[in-house]
Amino acid sequence: MSGADELVYVALGGAGEIGMNFYCYGFGPERDRKWLIVDCGVTFGDMASSPGVDLVMADIDFIAERRDSLLGIAITHAHEDHVGALSHLWPQLKAPVFCTKFTAAVAKRKFEDQGIAPAEVLRVVAPHDRTQLGPFEISFFPVTHSVPEAMALVIRTPLGLVFHSGDFKLDEAPLIAPPTDEAALGAIGDEGVLCFACDSTNVFEEGRAGSEESVRPGLAKVMRESPGAVACTTFASNVARLRTIAEVARENERSVVLAGRAMKRMVETAIATGAVPDFPDLIDEDRAEDLPARHLCYLVTGSQGEPRAAVGRISTNSHPFIRLKEGDTLIYSSRTIPGNEREVYRVYNRLAALGVRVVDADMADIHVSGHGYRDEIAQYYKLLRPAIALPIHGEHRHLAEHARMAKAWGAEYAAFAPNGRMMRLAGGARPEPEAVREVETGRVYLDGKTLVGALDGVIRARLKMARQGKVSMALVVDEEGELIADPQIRAVGAPVDGEGWPRPLEELIEEAVDDALENLSKKDRRSDKRIEDAAVAACRRICERHWGKKPEIAALVVRLDEEED
Amino acid sequence: MSGADELVYVALGGAGEIGMNFYCYGFGPERDRKWLIVDCGVTFGDMASSPGVDLVMADIDFIAERRDSLLGIAITHAHEDHVGALSHLWPQLKAPVFCTKFTAAVAKRKFEDQGIAPAEVLRVVAPHDRTQLGPFEISFFPVTHSVPEAMALVIRTPLGLVFHSGDFKLDEAPLIAPPTDEAALGAIGDEGVLCFACDSTNVFEEGRAGSEESVRPGLAKVMRESPGAVACTTFASNVARLRTIAEVARENERSVVLAGRAMKRMVETAIATGAVPDFPDLIDEDRAEDLPARHLCYLVTGSQGEPRAAVGRISTNSHPFIRLKEGDTLIYSSRTIPGNEREVYRVYNRLAALGVRVVDADMADIHVSGHGYRDEIAQYYKLLRPAIALPIHGEHRHLAEHARMAKAWGAEYAAFAPNGRMMRLAGGARPEPEAVREVETGRVYLDGKTLVGALDGVIRARLKMARQGKVSMALVVDEEGELIADPQIRAVGAPVDGEGWPRPLEELIEEAVDDALENLSKKDRRSDKRIEDAAVAACRRICERHWGKKPEIAALVVRLDEEED
Repeated sequence: MSGADELVYVALGGAGEIGMNFYCYGFGPERDRKWLIVDCGVTFGDMASSPGVDLVMADIDFIAERRDSLLGIAITHAHEDHVGALSHLWPQLKAPVFCTKFTAAVAKRKFEDQGIAPAEVLRVVAPHDRTQLGPFEISFFPVTHSVPEAMALVIRTPLGLVFHSGDFKLDEAPLIAPPTDEAALGAIGDEGVLCFACDSTNVFEEGRAGSEESVRPGLAKVMRESPGAVACTTFASNVARLRTIAEVARENERSVVLAGRAMKRMVETAIATGAVPDFPDLIDEDRAEDLPARHLCYLVTGSQGEPRAAVGRISTNSHPFIRLKEGDTLIYSSRTIPGNEREVYRVYNRLAALGVRVVDADMADIHVSGHGYRDEIAQYYKLLRPAIALPIHGEHRHLAEHARMAKAWGAEYAAFAPNGRMMRLAGGARPEPEAVREVETGRVYLDGKTLVGALDGVIRARLKMARQGKVSMALVVDEEGELIADPQIRAVGAPVDGEGWPRPLEELIEEAVDDALENLSKKDRRSDKRIEDAAVAACRRICERHWGKKPEIAALVVRLDEEED
Repeated sequence: MSGADELVYVALGGAGEIGMNFYCYGFGPERDRKWLIVDCGVTFGDMASSPGVDLVMADIDFIAERRDSLLGIAITHAHEDHVGALSHLWPQLKAPVFCTKFTAAVAKRKFEDQGIAPAEVLRVVAPHDRTQLGPFEISFFPVTHSVPEAMALVIRTPLGLVFHSGDFKLDEAPLIAPPTDEAALGAIGDEGVLCFACDSTNVFEEGRAGSEESVRPGLAKVMRESPGAVACTTFASNVARLRTIAEVARENERSVVLAGRAMKRMVETAIATGAVPDFPDLIDEDRAEDLPARHLCYLVTGSQGEPRAAVGRISTNSHPFIRLKEGDTLIYSSRTIPGNEREVYRVYNRLAALGVRVVDADMADIHVSGHGYRDEIAQYYKLLRPAIALPIHGEHRHLAEHARMAKAWGAEYAAFAPNGRMMRLAGGARPEPEAVREVETGRVYLDGKTLVGALDGVIRARLKMARQGKVSMALVVDEEGELIADPQIRAVGAPVDGEGWPRPLEELIEEAVDDALENLSKKDRRSDKRIEDAAVAACRRICERHWGKKPEIAALVVRLDEEED
């Protein structure tokens, strides 16, 4: 069985959570398989599960171990959840990267930041151009989404064609590109689609997402009604939206000022690569000072409540040049990513306290999703007519619902394949996809400058200290294990003193540790480990009894030899 | 000026955040003012801002210092955000507590848990009964909300009447109580309302919230369509909803099993107090084992993603007696409180992985809010015709929007009074409300068994350790400040080793600390503080350079006198 060619698929990220999209396709017999990666994304750490973590990436050991057989990495578009891990993980992969011009421009900067020469890595290809990589012939197919040059990937293999959707909607008026070429999709369907790996983001949403053009009247109305300045936030990469906002602002006699490095970079890149050549004129922040508020529109970052982005700074009146006040309006032309609500509302509240009116997509028609709703997904199924539906890009709940729906949409088979479940798509005895093995997957964190495994215990220990606090103690003993100085105790993240406590916490701990070590047998005192254990137990007992908590405890035992003194 | 009677108001909690409702009304001249508290609620800690904290309560120092002039505490209803802090904070207040029967039954258990005899504290009053407390005459007015016996509080004073709404909607079919008596509200309006302190929760929502009865067809449809067992979650205190679910289940030939202590307690209390006398028959969990899945409906806790509640345990297959599988359905007849999305979706995903279908209020008409939407709030304004609108119960953004809307709804004045802003409602030279002072407010955390101030630094230190990790070290020096043993280093929440590091982190730190202390002057070595500072600086430098982080550092210096050896 292992001698025959097979086409297999495994997600190392993206199928089972939002973000860190990382999909692998393999072709060949099991012992001599060639590999292709599609997308290499990140997600971000959060205080609840990964405090202090900057980026969360897929654990790619499985494919890194096979990098000699890795023929290429295709990046569908320039969103962080598709390209953000590329420069961090590429050193483990060292394969050529294929993408279109705009995406390459975004990736280039990331490689440079990591000290990797992009020219040696990036292969810029035009949409529809076919590239042969061993058994894979790949070509990008333009789709509509909330970033310039969003692409699906068509993967032709000797065992059939895979249409890997990337992120898409069916936008009739995407503004920065033509609508999706449905005839061309139909032609691919005619050619025969073995497998449709399809974005599941909005599989729960009925109907259609709405076109990029449709937000224009809503934005115009809100701007018209604002007696003062307007600041408008959306994702920096949504250049179509930025352009719409800028156009509406100018129609509303407002000069447009870009604020935030990410936003400036994206607009510059879109203009420079020709992805969005006709961006309205902007004015400099310095010139804005001379204009009345009524004639200003700021384009700002920070739609997800990031405290250090422009909106966050505006809300605390600490932005370098934007001050908003009573009569001004902050427009969120965006959607809050689930999990960020608390941070976003915190900013709303600060703005409300300043007298600034906040208008968001719940209050006006000023945002549409970049991901197609059910009718759009169904239309893709209708055109492509795949044998196998392979839901990707979603949490478990999305994948499960998508697999349920896919049969109604005409797919013969639907594969529920969360991260790590390797599916044989073709080459088996029967036509249906089959789970052939479970591959180890997981998460890797960028913590400061260092990569840390999610299961290394580093973050778990931090979460414990966050909940329970930390006690450090220094215990200096002689050769016999007798304390020769008072234990030094330092409790951090713990109350100093509490209602009804006989003494402050550190004193209570010191006393208890003193007693505990006194009560150790002569034999136990010869072991640093026994001393440490006894001190930890005594400390924990005191903390539980008075404080009601079990802190993380470090009992550092220093044993002095007589000779050393 | 301070000699004349005034009616003042100040929120210590609830006006500026969701939860921990705590409102104070004062009457009399400034030097001899009598006080009345309305509600005493909690909110819950979260990993992002208060890790390890069990309950978040208002800092009530302002009113505790005036407890000799405190005449009473009125509790409008039995939700945690209105009654949850009562037993914890009552020892600082020691005033009689007024509430209706069901609320008293809920509060009673809380007092007992804290070892306070409820009989000495609680005064059960019937709706509409008037109680004179010094200058305040108070009476409860029945409103409709998602808990039995929800009340507004009517406060009559010599300077005018305050209608304090509690939480309310205008439910035409609330099921466990008659609809709101709008004629009686109108009569209060006729009497003259000085001030309407009004719930702002749904001030952004257009239209009406919908009646409790309206969820019935949606629930029936979902239950009918589920081929297997059904489990249904909602807030335990929403006894009307529990009853509806139980009734629909029985119509659908499903026996109903209650799971979760909170749910059992609430239903028992509702039956025992007569608040909901006619609850459908339930069956025991033991009997459920003998029934086919198709004939079961579990009522379960955990709608907010709490890992240890019933739904959380079901999702990890660790519930004591409920096992759900392919074909079964989990119904969320609830709304996710903003900030809990991540936890709730985590549970959804685990259920999806088990093959369990999740149906929530986004997917079917199976939930209505307990708080009125704009039309309902407007109707209250129409009936009460207050001079002053006083938005309460909401974040800043809600209060600001409510104040903006209130004038359109007919109020002469609207007071934007977040926590701590004391407003004079009557007794000033002019009729409009006026901010007279800012009172110190804040948050107090129940951390284990101990109350901790939000600004004590305890939680800040824990958050720092969560983000940056912690290094503890023991430095044993002699009288001259020479190290007489190797520094003991323990790094927690830090990577042991990293890509490109010459040695593991603890070794790098030890080396750097050793060097740093060697380089200290003779004079500096005589100071433990100088030694500590030098060690901390050296450790920080190493961590920043290699790891890219600034951990929390405890450098414990133990100085041994020669005599002691």
